[in-house]
Amino acid sequence: MTMKAPKEILSVLKKEKSFVIAAHISPDGDTIGSGLALSAALEAMGKKTVVYSRDRIPRYYRFLPGQGKITRALKELAKTAPVLVLLDCNSARRAGTEKQVFPLSLVIDHHETESDFGDVRWIEPRAAATGLMVYHVIKALGVRLTREMAVNLYTAIAVDTGTFRFSNTSAEVLEAAAELVRHGADPSHVSQALYESWEEKRLRLLQMTLETLEIRDRMATIFITREMFEKTRTKAADTENFPNFPKMIGAVEVSVSFRQKGGNTWKVSMRSRGKVNVARIAEIFGGGGHANAAGYEVEGSARAVRDALFRAYESYRK
Amino acid sequence: MTMKAPKEILSVLKKEKSFVIAAHISPDGDTIGSGLALSAALEAMGKKTVVYSRDRIPRYYRFLPGQGKITRALKELAKTAPVLVLLDCNSARRAGTEKQVFPLSLVIDHHETESDFGDVRWIEPRAAATGLMVYHVIKALGVRLTREMAVNLYTAIAVDTGTFRFSNTSAEVLEAAAELVRHGADPSHVSQALYESWEEKRLRLLQMTLETLEIRDRMATIFITREMFEKTRTKAADTENFPNFPKMIGAVEVSVSFRQKGGNTWKVSMRSRGKVNVARIAEIFGGGGHANAAGYEVEGSARAVRDALFRAYESYRK
Repeated sequence: MTMKAPKEILSVLKKEKSFVIAAHISPDGDTIGSGLALSAALEAMGKKTVVYSRDRIPRYYRFLPGQGKITRALKELAKTAPVLVLLDCNSARRAGTEKQVFPLSLVIDHHETESDFGDVRWIEPRAAATGLMVYHVIKALGVRLTREMAVNLYTAIAVDTGTFRFSNTSAEVLEAAAELVRHGADPSHVSQALYESWEEKRLRLLQMTLETLEIRDRMATIFITREMFEKTRTKAADTENFPNFPKMIGAVEVSVSFRQKGGNTWKVSMRSRGKVNVARIAEIFGGGGHANAAGYEVEGSARAVRDALFRAYESYRK
Repeated sequence: MTMKAPKEILSVLKKEKSFVIAAHISPDGDTIGSGLALSAALEAMGKKTVVYSRDRIPRYYRFLPGQGKITRALKELAKTAPVLVLLDCNSARRAGTEKQVFPLSLVIDHHETESDFGDVRWIEPRAAATGLMVYHVIKALGVRLTREMAVNLYTAIAVDTGTFRFSNTSAEVLEAAAELVRHGADPSHVSQALYESWEEKRLRLLQMTLETLEIRDRMATIFITREMFEKTRTKAADTENFPNFPKMIGAVEVSVSFRQKGGNTWKVSMRSRGKVNVARIAEIFGGGGHANAAGYEVEGSARAVRDALFRAYESYRK
C-alpha cells in the first residue's frame, strides 16, 4: 500500500497559522511521537503549535525530543482559536478536548472510525501507525526531516509495529524506518528506551506474576495482586505489556492478565495471536479495544472472574 | 556503510559446480538462514549444493524453507571434492569440518578474525549479519530473489539484529529487510517463529531463573541449575536468550546467566548494553565472542564462579 496525504489536509496545514495538536488520552508512543513530529514540521514552516495531552506522558517516553511543547492546559489555548489536529484518535472525547470548541478541526488517524468528528478527516486503518501517516504529511508538505522529527516518527512506528514484529510490518514500513534512520533516528537507542529501561522491581513483579501462569485450552492467564504490588513497591503502570509474556508460548492463542485494582475489582487485559477477536470478548463484559488487544473491568473473586472469562472465550470459539 | 561482495568470491561461486556450505557449530538463525539462501541461489544457477551442519538445527528454526538440503554427514560429501564455503564463522574447527580436506575453501563471515583459514575470504566485521553479506553476494551474482531466499535472509538478519533493536541496525539493514519483504519474507511470521513459539515449560524455567536475579554494581546475574532443568523437564537449548531478560532493567550494564552443565561446571553467557566489552572479560576465562555477547566455561561453586566474574568485571571497568 502506498499512502498519500489528502490535499484537503495539506492545504489547511499550509494555510493556517496556529495549531493545537492533540494526543489521545492514556497517550502512547504513536500519538506522542506523531504529535511532536508534526509540531516540529509545522514550526519549521513558521507556524505556532502546541501539543496537548490530557494525561501525563509515561516515563519511558520522556526520551522523545521536543517535549517542552507538550501542555496539559487546554482551556487557555482554546481562547486564541487555533486549528485543532487530532492524532491517533478520531473523537473529541478520546482526545479529551470535548469541552472546548475550535473553529476548525483536522483528524489524522489509523483506527477504524468510531466517530465522525472533524471538518477535514484522513482515516487510514491500513496504516501501521499514525506516525507513518504524519511521515507522509511532512514529506508532502516539502519540509526537510530533522533529527527531532525522525526520532519521534521512528518511535511512533516502532511502538505500533512492536519494532517490526507485528503483522502490520510491510516493506513500506521498513523503507520509511530506513529513511528515518538516515535522518538521525537511532534504532538501538529507541529500543533500549522502550524495552530496556525497566526498574528492577518491575522485573521482580513480572517474575511473581509468571508464577501464577495457568493455561487452559490455549488461553493463558496471569494474576497481579495488590499483595504483589506491595511486596515489590510497584504500580499499575509497571504491568504494561505483561500479557505479552505468556504469549511467547507457541500453544497460547489468547493471553490474559488480571490486575487487582482493590478488593474484588479486576482490570483484565487480553492479547490475541490473531485467531480470536478479543475485542468481541471484551464487549461481553462492557469493555472494548482492538481485535488483538482489548480489555475490561470486572468484579468477583480471582477464580470467578477467570472462570467467567474462560466460559466467554469457549463460547466465542465455537 | 555500503557493502560490496569481492570479485574473488563471486568468480569462484560462478566458476565452480559443486559446493558444501557449512554452518557453524551450535547453529543459529544467521548461519542457517545464510546457508539455505546461498544454497538456493547457487542451485538457481544450476549448481549442486548441500548445507552441512555438524549440530542439530534447533527446533525454532525448523520453519526455514529448504531444510531438506541440510546434512550432518560430512565424510561422504568430501569424497566428491566440492568447494567448501564457511558461513558466519572463519575456522574449520568452528564449522566442525577440521577432519576433512577440501580442494578450495571460501569464507564469508562478519566475526572478527580468529583464524586465517580459507583460500578466498570475505570478512566484514561491520556487517550486521552474515545474511546481509550473502544478500549482497546473491544480488551481485544476478540471481533473482525467491521467497525461499528472502525468508532465510530476512531471518538471518532479524536474528543478528534482534529484529532491528541492536546497535548494528543501520538504514542499510532496514532497506535490505524491506526488499526481502517485497520478495516474500513475512515479518510477523518470522517473529512469531523466533520469539513466540516457546514451550510452556521454557517459560516456567525462565520464571524460576528470574527468581535468582541479583544485581551488583550494574551487573545482573541469574542461575539455571540442574535441579531447575529436572523440575521443568527442559534442556540447555531452552535457555537461549535468557540473559536478555535481566537486560530489560535500565540500570543493568552487563547481564549474565550461569548454566549448570553438571556438578561444578558452568556455562557462562554475558550480554552487554554496549559500554563493557564482554568478549574481553570472556577471554580472561578462556572464552570469547562479540563485544556485546560472549561466554566461557568455568568450574567452581555457584558463589565462587559469580565472585570471580564480578572481580574480572570490576577490574575491567577501572
